[in-house]
Amino acid sequence: MSTEPLRITVWNEGVHEARQQPANISSYYPDGIHGAIAQGLAEHLPDASIRTATLAEVEHGLTEDVLAHTDVLFWWGHIAHDEVSDEVVERVRRHVLGGMGLVVLHSGHFSKIFITLMGTTCSLKWRNEAERELVFNVNPAHPISAGLPSPIVIPHQEMYGELFDIPKFDDLVFISSFTGGEVFRSGVTFSRGRGRIFYFSPGDQEYPVYLQPEIRHVLANAAAWAAQPGLREHRQPEVSNAERDWFGG
Amino acid sequence: MSTEPLRITVWNEGVHEARQQPANISSYYPDGIHGAIAQGLAEHLPDASIRTATLAEVEHGLTEDVLAHTDVLFWWGHIAHDEVSDEVVERVRRHVLGGMGLVVLHSGHFSKIFITLMGTTCSLKWRNEAERELVFNVNPAHPISAGLPSPIVIPHQEMYGELFDIPKFDDLVFISSFTGGEVFRSGVTFSRGRGRIFYFSPGDQEYPVYLQPEIRHVLANAAAWAAQPGLREHRQPEVSNAERDWFGG
Amino acid sequence: MSTEPLRITVWNEGVHEARQQPANISSYYPDGIHGAIAQGLAEHLPDASIRTATLAEVEHGLTEDVLAHTDVLFWWGHIAHDEVSDEVVERVRRHVLGGMGLVVLHSGHFSKIFITLMGTTCSLKWRNEAERELVFNVNPAHPISAGLPSPIVIPHQEMYGELFDIPKFDDLVFISSFTGGEVFRSGVTFSRGRGRIFYFSPGDQEYPVYLQPEIRHVLANAAAWAAQPGLREHRQPEVSNAERDWFGG
Amino acid sequence: MSTEPLRITVWNEGVHEARQQPANISSYYPDGIHGAIAQGLAEHLPDASIRTATLAEVEHGLTEDVLAHTDVLFWWGHIAHDEVSDEVVERVRRHVLGGMGLVVLHSGHFSKIFITLMGTTCSLKWRNEAERELVFNVNPAHPISAGLPSPIVIPHQEMYGELFDIPKFDDLVFISSFTGGEVFRSGVTFSRGRGRIFYFSPGDQEYPVYLQPEIRHVLANAAAWAAQPGLREHRQPEVSNAERDWFGG
Repeated sequence: MSTEPLRITVWNEGVHEARQQPANISSYYPDGIHGAIAQGLAEHLPDASIRTATLAEVEHGLTEDVLAHTDVLFWWGHIAHDEVSDEVVERVRRHVLGGMGLVVLHSGHFSKIFITLMGTTCSLKWRNEAERELVFNVNPAHPISAGLPSPIVIPHQEMYGELFDIPKFDDLVFISSFTGGEVFRSGVTFSRGRGRIFYFSPGDQEYPVYLQPEIRHVLANAAAWAAQPGLREHRQPEVSNAERDWFGG
Repeated sequence: MSTEPLRITVWNEGVHEARQQPANISSYYPDGIHGAIAQGLAEHLPDASIRTATLAEVEHGLTEDVLAHTDVLFWWGHIAHDEVSDEVVERVRRHVLGGMGLVVLHSGHFSKIFITLMGTTCSLKWRNEAERELVFNVNPAHPISAGLPSPIVIPHQEMYGELFDIPKFDDLVFISSFTGGEVFRSGVTFSRGRGRIFYFSPGDQEYPVYLQPEIRHVLANAAAWAAQPGLREHRQPEVSNAERDWFGG
Repeated sequence: MSTEPLRITVWNEGVHEARQQPANISSYYPDGIHGAIAQGLAEHLPDASIRTATLAEVEHGLTEDVLAHTDVLFWWGHIAHDEVSDEVVERVRRHVLGGMGLVVLHSGHFSKIFITLMGTTCSLKWRNEAERELVFNVNPAHPISAGLPSPIVIPHQEMYGELFDIPKFDDLVFISSFTGGEVFRSGVTFSRGRGRIFYFSPGDQEYPVYLQPEIRHVLANAAAWAAQPGLREHRQPEVSNAERDWFGG
Repeated sequence: MSTEPLRITVWNEGVHEARQQPANISSYYPDGIHGAIAQGLAEHLPDASIRTATLAEVEHGLTEDVLAHTDVLFWWGHIAHDEVSDEVVERVRRHVLGGMGLVVLHSGHFSKIFITLMGTTCSLKWRNEAERELVFNVNPAHPISAGLPSPIVIPHQEMYGELFDIPKFDDLVFISSFTGGEVFRSGVTFSRGRGRIFYFSPGDQEYPVYLQPEIRHVLANAAAWAAQPGLREHRQPEVSNAERDWFGG
């Protein structure tokens, strides 16, 4: 019930953009994948404070100070997962367990931070043949699917298919199918410690998925759902030796 | 860890068979849908005691005595849900809450017993155009998917699509896709009281799905999973006024 | 992300108040249990529109028009569950499945509406000896526990103990213990259709629990969580025969 | 439905026994904690093949060969978590993801293997004052609670209390309370990859909990539930680039 503005940080490894892979990436993402995501969020959350950060920045742009003032962190990575320092991954993990929201996108399924928080391999099947993806809402009571059509039709996307090796989720929100017949749990929530996590699979570097209005709406819903702007600080759960009647009962 | 033989009752409304709808139903289901299911179970569970029951029998063949000696009840119904007496539904419900397993198949999603146990509308999308159904295993740790390929390919089936209006499940085991692109949570477990429930959507009266070896394997896994042959009786949970230290501590 | 004010209806059977059972009930609940709940909600949700309704009113105060303009319905009942008309129960159910939030309190576990939506007996153990209840937060990431201490200490309460016969929940938020050693899943969320449901057990007619600040905070959090003020109407899921490519893909 | 005998490995760090802490530990655990657990399992699972392993052995007794022939691994550790080699932890993790069952006991909540598989801090509250623990069954449909009384009364135990920082569980089976009023989710299941995990909190080195018949019964139920003796090998999920129609549909 906090009315403070959301503070969102959109992280992108930024390597596809730097290498111009694919060659035309700047034609649809002139400000990078992070720029497109940030713009999409801003359309829906005009009061939010939105910044971006990339791998090439000092500490990947994810300093203690940045994370301490972030309510939700978006994460896009693909070909440079190994270049993310373990120290930064541990820092992000500590903030998530302390209450910072985390939205992991597409190929971020294989990021260090996601695997660490899940405890599984996070492996899946994939195929890059520009197939149609249909994103069906299987949880109409969930805030992340509010106001959205079902299915969301994505004309061209990389296929991600089951088995997606993830642990038990809090809520399954979206299931996708692809032209080739595969299915995928494409929108899934998890909680870890005090933090809320949403994994959302649409969004490859080769297809301008983050320009699509319904996808932007999903991302904005996810930000609002994952954020806890009322938290003073991100404090992860800790062990304690509790005396009898410590609660003053 | 009981080694007693499973006692299975396969219930079928039996109306499609009686009316010969479709006209060739007896060519693939000469002993009815219940007969095919019972035969499939017997292949995998040679020690099980398997009987069948139908709507036309006295008390639909589901007397107190039959249910008291049933570890798992399979339920197939479609065009005669309303003809099932409320008294029998209430009796089945009491036994499920008391520990009898229940496997609800295909159009049984709209049976009185399933709706009553779910608390939702159990509605869905459907289309009967002989589409290919792919049944993907999304839960390889679950006993019901043990030993099965993924996907199971069903050449021709009625399409069932989301939104399938069911409550939170215990475990999601299978997700299907269809030629038209729709997806469906086709294998889902629930517990109610002391009882275990599995809903499995493949199996329309127009397509001989219950002759397919993988489908029979799923049904046998489900029977073994849902059964609690060690239970002496099916006793549903009851309210009680508990004295202090009733547990003798 | 709607900013429309919440519309809350607090329903109470109102029979304890009418019969003055216990004799001193009006000393702590001068405006009835519903009055105390409404006042507690108003403290935390000053912009909300809050009304009350009781069993004695025409249609128990829950007309189609009232429900159509209610984002969250609170439900308190105890000794008059059977006097609630089946027609009103069905109407409430339809609105919940269509997206109206429902918060069921204490002895409402045995209300027709709760049993119908759960599909189980909803039975439990109870003992009325003014025991201390400790309400522990086991889900610090959940909006309903935000800003609250753990445990909440309730000096005197009726004991509710396991086995609480409920189906799989969406989220378990609170677990209580009592002086006698029993435990109870005292704060549990469910979704049904498009609607969100929260069951919260504290709050007997003999103890002024709804005057306690932390309890009022829980109720306000629950209202904000369960409400979907952005919904135009409460429309429950429906079956449909879907043509190929109905989604325009 | 495999009828092959279970192959169980009971692992214990064995440090309390080696140091005789507490001094009388050999009076109730003459064969160590692992010995007591193995004996309890053998009582209920006479056909099982049960071995033990400890930290002091080469590779902690958990070689590739041992794990490849283990259906369920029990894990008890406390003061030597850090002495378990990362290589062995990674090996155990790979086998669990590949289908080996894992039962983590008591202070094993802080073992490397459990934290790695959970993705959270696994922290909790504790107090060692020989309090009475009541273990309530909140899931009577679950195989692990079959045949057991509720509550199980443990006369003297270390207190473990919430917040227990674990992720969403597959099933919550037991909730405990302690003399001091704290509650704890004391029996919880998880799946990771193809493997089934059960965490069970009773069992401190200072109290002979593993001699108690009901506790032994829980452990045997857990072994039978977690084992997949039908698996040929433990193969964790892997990523793959799937061609169109790889499933031969």
